[in-house]
Amino acid sequence: MEVVLLSVNKTRDPALKTLIIDYVGRINHYVKFSMVEIPKINYSNNNKEEQKNKEAIEIKKKIKKNDICILLDENGKSLNSIQFSEHLNRYYCYNKKRLIFLIGGAFGVSKEIYSIIIDEISLSKMTFNHQMIKLFFCEQLYRANTILKNEKYHNE
Amino acid sequence: MEVVLLSVNKTRDPALKTLIIDYVGRINHYVKFSMVEIPKINYSNNNKEEQKNKEAIEIKKKIKKNDICILLDENGKSLNSIQFSEHLNRYYCYNKKRLIFLIGGAFGVSKEIYSIIIDEISLSKMTFNHQMIKLFFCEQLYRANTILKNEKYHNE
Repeated sequence: MEVVLLSVNKTRDPALKTLIIDYVGRINHYVKFSMVEIPKINYSNNNKEEQKNKEAIEIKKKIKKNDICILLDENGKSLNSIQFSEHLNRYYCYNKKRLIFLIGGAFGVSKEIYSIIIDEISLSKMTFNHQMIKLFFCEQLYRANTILKNEKYHNE
Repeated sequence: MEVVLLSVNKTRDPALKTLIIDYVGRINHYVKFSMVEIPKINYSNNNKEEQKNKEAIEIKKKIKKNDICILLDENGKSLNSIQFSEHLNRYYCYNKKRLIFLIGGAFGVSKEIYSIIIDEISLSKMTFNHQMIKLFFCEQLYRANTILKNEKYHNE
């Protein structure tokens, strides 16, 4: 299975990029992992729904019919790292080609995206900078894989 | 009031340091904020309790009698960003000289530290790399201050 982190807006901060790239490398020792970033779309006004709808069009272009799609959102299920690794293991067992974790834009995702996702997971109840969320997710995905392999990274 | 992030183990990763320093600067526009890092103590064995006790000695050296001390721990209260800003505002109103947020070592903190803390807050139920937690906290402290000032950074 291949894991993809699909997100709206590109990571521009070089320090953040450096940290994320390090984790992408580490995760690839366990599972094929890549990041797909949808460039920011510029809007003439500040209409949240319109922005989410335009982002939804771009998100859907990147998702294939048989992908398993999980939304990362602060209103999703709160899991600890062990529980997240168990969820991940369950997704791995679905035996589909791709597992997509989706991070929406600044205003979340449009309603139609909810018909595509099968699960909604929260990394934190707190709202974090959307660029930073990518780093948090990568660290957690790496951690989950080390837990599944009974490796030493995670301390209980 | 002065806010201090007190943590065990120094941040060595230069990219992480860059990101943290940026937030430290931004937070200082709202409140006096600094970070105090206790260097890692090397142990002859892997005894968790002994490690936590040794760390507790160093932690206590950095905490003054009238400090308000909050532990950041995944088992603490889960708050969203708005709730965290409300908590922060309450601490600010205590009118003490220093508000300390404490991040323990890899195995948490020893029992005696719990007699010093007045609150325990969770940034996430998930366990994160302890160096990264500092970055998460700084972003959240910055966000909370912008919320308290009704500024635009936070989107609901």
